[in-house]
Amino acid sequence: MQTSELIGFGAAFLSTASFVPQVWLTFRTRDVSGISLGMYSVFTLGVALWLVYGLSLAAWPVVAANAITLALAVSILVMKLRYGSRPAR
Amino acid sequence: MQTSELIGFGAAFLSTASFVPQVWLTFRTRDVSGISLGMYSVFTLGVALWLVYGLSLAAWPVVAANAITLALAVSILVMKLRYGSRPAR
Repeated sequence: MQTSELIGFGAAFLSTASFVPQVWLTFRTRDVSGISLGMYSVFTLGVALWLVYGLSLAAWPVVAANAITLALAVSILVMKLRYGSRPAR
Repeated sequence: MQTSELIGFGAAFLSTASFVPQVWLTFRTRDVSGISLGMYSVFTLGVALWLVYGLSLAAWPVVAANAITLALAVSILVMKLRYGSRPAR
């Protein structure tokens, strides 16, 4: 495997895995006041498009990374919508 | 331009631009209690690796999108570190 490919896999792993601690923090605390609804709306749409892009090129690493990121981003978006109208606890 | 390329540009634009409302919300409110330090630490590292990956392949759209995302992610990370120890106002 080329060095650049290794770097790409590291990048995909880290940028995808990074959303796990955010999902966990939000799930645990329901503290969504500082989380931007605009960010997670637009980001979810962007990641969905990355998924379509990967599928259209049969680029499976792109598909896999973005499918996982999409699930994590949707979780945060749903929690923002659900907990947003209540005071954080 | 192929349809898949258009989708890719749309995806890159949206996933990069999505961080702007988060930077703005955090800058305006200093409300960082619900923002995960783990997420922004790992995400910043991941995006930096995407930037190195793009540079190593001379893939300029990857370089451009990730340079902008890196700047936005670093801003959020710095605000989290700076405002994290104070009560949100």
